[in-house]
Order: sequence, then structure tokens, then C-alpha cells
Amino acid sequence: MKKIAILGSTGSIGTQALDVVRNLPEEFSVEVLAANSNVELFARQVEEFRPKLAVLADEAAYKILREKNFDGTELAGGRQAFIDAATFDGVEIVLTSMSGFAGLEPTLKAIACGKNIALANKETLVVAGELVTKSARAHGVKILPVDSEHGAFFQCLQGEDSRAIEKLLLTASGGPFRGKKRDDLRNATVNEVLAHPTWNMGRKITVDSASLVNKGLEVIEAKFLYGVTYDQIQVVVHPQSIVHSMVEFRDGSIIAQLASTDMRLPIQYALTYPRRLPSPVKRLDFWQMRALTFEQPDVETFLGLKFAYAAGKTGGTLPCTFNAANEVAVREFLRGRIKFLNIYDVIDNAMSRRPVTQNPSLEDLLAEDSATRRLAEEFIASR
Amino acid sequence: MKKIAILGSTGSIGTQALDVVRNLPEEFSVEVLAANSNVELFARQVEEFRPKLAVLADEAAYKILREKNFDGTELAGGRQAFIDAATFDGVEIVLTSMSGFAGLEPTLKAIACGKNIALANKETLVVAGELVTKSARAHGVKILPVDSEHGAFFQCLQGEDSRAIEKLLLTASGGPFRGKKRDDLRNATVNEVLAHPTWNMGRKITVDSASLVNKGLEVIEAKFLYGVTYDQIQVVVHPQSIVHSMVEFRDGSIIAQLASTDMRLPIQYALTYPRRLPSPVKRLDFWQMRALTFEQPDVETFLGLKFAYAAGKTGGTLPCTFNAANEVAVREFLRGRIKFLNIYDVIDNAMSRRPVTQNPSLEDLLAEDSATRRLAEEFIASR
Repeated sequence: MKKIAILGSTGSIGTQALDVVRNLPEEFSVEVLAANSNVELFARQVEEFRPKLAVLADEAAYKILREKNFDGTELAGGRQAFIDAATFDGVEIVLTSMSGFAGLEPTLKAIACGKNIALANKETLVVAGELVTKSARAHGVKILPVDSEHGAFFQCLQGEDSRAIEKLLLTASGGPFRGKKRDDLRNATVNEVLAHPTWNMGRKITVDSASLVNKGLEVIEAKFLYGVTYDQIQVVVHPQSIVHSMVEFRDGSIIAQLASTDMRLPIQYALTYPRRLPSPVKRLDFWQMRALTFEQPDVETFLGLKFAYAAGKTGGTLPCTFNAANEVAVREFLRGRIKFLNIYDVIDNAMSRRPVTQNPSLEDLLAEDSATRRLAEEFIASR
Repeated sequence: MKKIAILGSTGSIGTQALDVVRNLPEEFSVEVLAANSNVELFARQVEEFRPKLAVLADEAAYKILREKNFDGTELAGGRQAFIDAATFDGVEIVLTSMSGFAGLEPTLKAIACGKNIALANKETLVVAGELVTKSARAHGVKILPVDSEHGAFFQCLQGEDSRAIEKLLLTASGGPFRGKKRDDLRNATVNEVLAHPTWNMGRKITVDSASLVNKGLEVIEAKFLYGVTYDQIQVVVHPQSIVHSMVEFRDGSIIAQLASTDMRLPIQYALTYPRRLPSPVKRLDFWQMRALTFEQPDVETFLGLKFAYAAGKTGGTLPCTFNAANEVAVREFLRGRIKFLNIYDVIDNAMSRRPVTQNPSLEDLLAEDSATRRLAEEFIASR
């Protein structure tokens, strides 16, 4: 039995990971569950999986949880307890399925304790790619991608020599606004943004998917996971979301990974790696398959990709700035305080005004994240 | 430098293999060239590559070749010399790019001498799958597929556990007659048959591609190469010939290999395996890619697949019968003596009339091949 910790168990990835565990009960022992504040769902999960440790980061939610009694499960609350949950003794692999920049500290802690990481929190690599990959190498830790695209790269690269990579072809559904121009998007509503055509995901990532910021974050993530240059990463719009990404090798051959749009598949592969175990996910039927199409992304309308390549190529703290500005912008968009296209204005303002520090430490990144958030909030308030 | 022998050097695969060698001059030393009767082209190849041994199977052609003088190259002629060329001392890998049943004996000889096989002669595995795979195991010999489809499976299976295979998805262009019905094919001409939509191949295989017999041969080949059951092999028509085949694993994930339609790619991979080396083949451009489509094969019109599954499932000498009848039928079709749809009649007649011997020896197979050829010729003559 593989001993696992799930950080962010009540989110979209966390609940699907628990479904994977349910389907393979002989394979996993859930040692740690940790979430932010959804106490009702979290209590049911603790009841079902009986982890050794259960943590809620939100103090008020923790107070409610504490009222209940779970035999054999230690309860803890608060941000520090959440970070410490990543280092729980005996855990072999930590699934980092919490959202946003807040995932960085627990991930670094887990790596420093020698735990393998099933990485669903892409912000970790975007913000601190060098820090994280350096630490993973130093501690002999594997980073197993959970994103469907990076899971696809990972699968395509099994048995291959990474020096033979010519190009990573990162596929993108194009989101709900594919084909639209800036004029069409001026009054895009939250509901329109959240109507993702192919994937069922959390709200933050669905907005990022519409703006192509998500694809931009994935470009930076891919760069650090596979050690390629930015010029070796090509984003390809593929509206059917059947091909989850591809690797082109220097002989001109391309290896692709295809599957139905079910996140349980990359989650399971990361957790069972290097084995492939049976899964109930729906099979693709090529006798009934619709046409698979591919096109160039519209980077003039959807600026997320442009910002990401610029931030990634400059490096240092700039990817952190890009990510923090976007997190604030998306939050304010979901609250109805700014319009969809203003997300790009918030990012653009932050990236052009924040100074860049090269080779940032964790402290530098925490400071940059705070500074950018303040700047972004002021920018929004001043408009 | 890898020392190689190319049997069938003047055919479509042989000439493309020499082009691979030309592109990677540091990698290969061509020790042996062997061909049937195209003396003019063969002499040019010997002149350019200066093998240690050069063999023409056809005695009359050999007499012409013998007139010339090639420093450092031993010349030989005749069927037996061709078979013996497969065992030339020091050769590490033998490319079997001769056509048809005649490839079986030299391939078995090469395996018995411990040479790895770059297998382009699929008839070898179709006719004698058990004999060949058993001998390869006994002699610790690798069989590296050169067919684009089987090369695709081979690439998709790198780093994977073959026990995790759920299904092999064998793609087919559908040939020049895709979408046509029996009535449309009654008067199909040789020129129509030879107009393959995506691949540039030899005449025999192009006819087999139109009848789907080629895909049937590939089904049997795949069964022996990857140890799956016939029910685990699904043929998928994919008219664009971009996806060269796919493997579905038991977690529901599919790994596919894609490339432009250039046989130099699978040839090179088989010869350089396990390394991927640079190649000049045209890259796929997904920003300009046309739609990729997939459909069910029409097995009621194109009977090649039905015959192949039936022959394969019965086993024994029946795949040999299937192949021999088809070789005669295609030859007579190309000579204008029978019509396209008669190819199926010739196969059907042979498969229903020849007795089946299980676990055949090489002698059994040679006898079955001769007996089926006689039967097929008589059947054609009597019509």
C-alpha cells in the first residue's frame, strides 16, 4: 500500500483523487487529508478514509470540525498546521491539489522531507521553478505531474531520452471564447467564462482557461518539468481536448497521449507510477470519433500566453509577479468588480511596474507575491 | 558503427534504408547488400556503399553483375547465396526488406545466427509467427518492426509494461477505394488500385492496401510481435495517415505515434534503436494541420480483414494459405488476368479447400506455400 497525503482534498482534484483511491482500495492508504474551509465535505471525507491526520487551514472551519470525534484521526487547524501536514511521517507521496500560490510552502516542505510530489498545484513551479527543481534534485524526489497536459508529456517521455526532445506540443482547448475577438469579450459575464467546453474544473482555473493564462502557466510549468527552452514549447489549440499533449523528437516522430477528459486518469497515473492500473474512465471509441482539429492560438486576443512567455523568458521574480497579479484579477473578476479583459490590464500593469530580482529565495518570492497583490489591488481600486 | 545487412536493397524499403544510411554516415557500415534482379540499380548501390558482400538472387542478373569489378566486394548469385547473405559474419542487424514469402528462410537463418532483425518483410511473421518468435526468444534476438504501424506500436510501448496493454489500435488509410462498395469495384483497373492516397510504396503492397489484405497481414503481424489476442486488435480507418497507430492501456490512456508519411522514419528508428537520431523527414505542423478523422473499416466490401482474422484465429498453416493465395492473386491481377474482386475469390477458395496443420515446421510451411500456389493457379486457370 502506498501511503499518501492529499493537500486540498475538497477541491476538484482532491475529490477526484479520493475517487481514484476508492477504485483501487488495495493500493493506497490515505494518511493525511488537508483542506481549506469546506468543513462539511471534509468531515465526510475524514469519516470515510480515516486518515491519521486531518487538517483545515481555516481556523473558524477547524473549530467546527473539532466538535466531531473521529476515532484514530488527529485533527489540526491553521495555516502552519496545513504546511506541516506536507511532512507527515511515513507518507511517500504528497498530492498538492491546493489552489494558487499558497501551495508553494507546503510543497517545498514536502520536498525537503524527501516526499515524492504528485503536482497539481502548477503555481508552485511557475513561481519557484528553479527553487523547486533544484530542491527536488538535491533530495532525490520525483515530481509527478497531475495536469492532464503535463501528465501527457510525462507519459509520452517514458522510455525516451529527454535529450532527443525537439519540441513539446502543448494542447489547449481554446476555452469558451475560442474564435472570439476583443470586441466580443468586452462584456463577457462570469457565467459565460465558467462554461468550459470540455473540462469540469474549479472556478479559478476555468477563468484562467478562458483568458489563456492557464495555458501560459502550463508553458512555464513544462519548461521546468522537462528542462527545455521556451522556444521548444509550442501551444496548439485542439478544441476537442482528446489529445492531451504531444512530444516531437529529433527524428521527426511525435508521441501523443489521448484519453477522455477525465482528470482521474492523470491523477491515477501520478499516484500509481510507474505502474498503469485498471481504471473505470470512459474509453475513447475511434469508430465513433469526431474529427480532431488543431489550430494556432490567437495570442493577440488572448494575451495570457504572451505574458507567460515574457515572464518566463525574463525569469527571476517575474513569473511570480505574473501569477500574483492574475490571482488577484481573477478573484476580483469572479466578485464582479472588474471585467474579463481587465484581467490582462491588471497583469500588464504589475509586470511593467514591478522590479525583477534574479535567483529569488523563498523569502524574495513571498515578498514579491505580497507586493504584487498590493499593487494589483491598488490598481483595481484606482480605476 | 553498426554493421548492417540489407536484404532487398533495390525495393522501396531498401532504397529508403540506404537513404537513412546516407543521412547518418557515422552510424552505419553496410556490410551486405542483396537484391533479386534489378542489376542496374544494384550495381550503383554496390559502387556507392562498397559492402563486403553483394548478392543477386537471380542467376541471369548475377551474370551481368559479375562483368563489373568492385574493389573489396565479394559477389555472389542465386537463391541459396541470397539466403546465406543473411548470416554474414559480423553483421549485427539484418533489414529484411525483400518481398513476400521468399523472406521467410533468410530471416529464420539470420535469427538462428543471433542477428537482430529490422523486419520489413511482414509475411515472415504472418506465415511463421510462432516459429519466428520462438526462435527469436531462443537466440536472444530482437525483432524491430519497420512497418509504420508496428513501428508506431513499438514506439508507443517504450517504457511501458506490455501486460498493461488493453488494445492495439491499428490505423489504416483505407486505401484508394475507401467509401466504395462492391458494385463500384467490379471494373477497378490496375492504375486505380496503384493510386494510393498517402503512401508511396511497392506495387504488391499497394494492391494489398486497396484490398485491406495488407491490413489483415498487419493484424497477424501485430499479434505475434506484441503477444495480444486477436480481439485486442482493432483496425481504425484514418484516411490522413498521420497517426501511425496507437496503444490503449488498461487505465484508459492511449499513446499514439504521429509523423509525416515517410518510411525513412520507422526504418531509421529500427536501425538506430534504442536511440533517436536526427532525421530530415518533414515535420508535422499542427498550426496548419487538416482535421484528423477516424472511422470503422467496411469489412463487408473489403474482405481482406475478415480473411485475416479467420486465418489468424484458426492458426497453424492457415495464415500461410491466406498469404500464398493472395500473393498469386495479386500477381495475376497486376498481369491483368483477373479482376480486383477476384483476389478475394482466390483467397476464399484456397482457405476453404486447404487442410490446416497445427504447429507447422518450416518444411510444412514451404509445402503449404507451394500447394496453395498450385491450387490458386489452377483455380484462376479454370475460371
